[in-house]
Amino acid sequence: MLKQTTFTVTTRGRGTHELTNEVQRFVGAAGITAGLCHVFVHHTSASLMLCENADPTVRRDLEAFMARLAPDGDPLFQHQSEGPDDMPAHVRTVLTQTGLSIPIRERRCALGTWQGIYLWEHRTSGHRRRVTVTLQGG
Amino acid sequence: MLKQTTFTVTTRGRGTHELTNEVQRFVGAAGITAGLCHVFVHHTSASLMLCENADPTVRRDLEAFMARLAPDGDPLFQHQSEGPDDMPAHVRTVLTQTGLSIPIRERRCALGTWQGIYLWEHRTSGHRRRVTVTLQGG
Amino acid sequence: MLKQTTFTVTTRGRGTHELTNEVQRFVGAAGITAGLCHVFVHHTSASLMLCENADPTVRRDLEAFMARLAPDGDPLFQHQSEGPDDMPAHVRTVLTQTGLSIPIRERRCALGTWQGIYLWEHRTSGHRRRVTVTLQGG
Repeated sequence: MLKQTTFTVTTRGRGTHELTNEVQRFVGAAGITAGLCHVFVHHTSASLMLCENADPTVRRDLEAFMARLAPDGDPLFQHQSEGPDDMPAHVRTVLTQTGLSIPIRERRCALGTWQGIYLWEHRTSGHRRRVTVTLQGG
Repeated sequence: MLKQTTFTVTTRGRGTHELTNEVQRFVGAAGITAGLCHVFVHHTSASLMLCENADPTVRRDLEAFMARLAPDGDPLFQHQSEGPDDMPAHVRTVLTQTGLSIPIRERRCALGTWQGIYLWEHRTSGHRRRVTVTLQGG
Repeated sequence: MLKQTTFTVTTRGRGTHELTNEVQRFVGAAGITAGLCHVFVHHTSASLMLCENADPTVRRDLEAFMARLAPDGDPLFQHQSEGPDDMPAHVRTVLTQTGLSIPIRERRCALGTWQGIYLWEHRTSGHRRRVTVTLQGG
């Protein structure tokens, strides 16, 4: 069985947007007992991650880490025409994930206790981000 | 055809634990000629990687690289309550993989000559890590 | 339905090699309306990425970023026997992707407007790199 849906997430600038509930609802409604759930973001300056979902400080620290690693306006970068945050956004995307596959067991994404699914907006301004979820299994 | 199994790996603290043989045995027994093998770790402070399997110095150097990039006790991090190695473990996980998909050809994971499948424990103490392998194909 | 193909890319040393057209042709010929396309590189010193495909400066800047993060001949690395660029190549591979999954919709990889599929050669000399594409869907 294969199920696929596309939806849009409106971000409010740099930061994370949790998708766990939205993805779990789609998986629950699909009636797939076992298989795989694939989440994909159709962009090159926003990405996906599975991240600790209990303490928001973890995501704050990940932002601080990325800001140190590839700071906005870094003179290393020639690609500055779309703003000082654009090339760092591409770097952050390449270092994280555009797609995530998660096992489906017992009609749910079998996430670990502390795993949440996050869309990570890397641009400083808000954007509309397209996400596609594809389920395969039986 | 779909086959799925979950097992536990007991780690001895930071470092790599090879899963190649365990995964190949499961693929070999499944009777899938061609398809995909997906390996997933249900945690946010341990990850997976495909890495050079010939010279252990490569994995030693990857540890040294990560320790330089996100050192334990880094004052950048506010999330320190679970120990100085916890936030660096989340960073290392986000920069590597929680899931790996590998093509199955001729009833085996079609790994390159030098590719091994590794679980990478990022905490300094040992943990029990759950891994799920999902096979799809025919 | 499952379709699988393996081909070789001859690289000219460090840099990117676009695979988008080759992958889209295979997907188009397969007759799969909806599903997933998985691209895999069978090596540990070359990787895959989805990257902005409009301005080549983005890929130039990604090279500069990686060269700063893990410079050739970095004294941190003990694994130097295969050349000063070998261990940095393993680091770059682990930080990016060995496999990419992309949704198939309407008989095409549903890439975003600016997403291109790139093989990224991390060694300074050219190599022959094996790539496997696996399609699943209906």
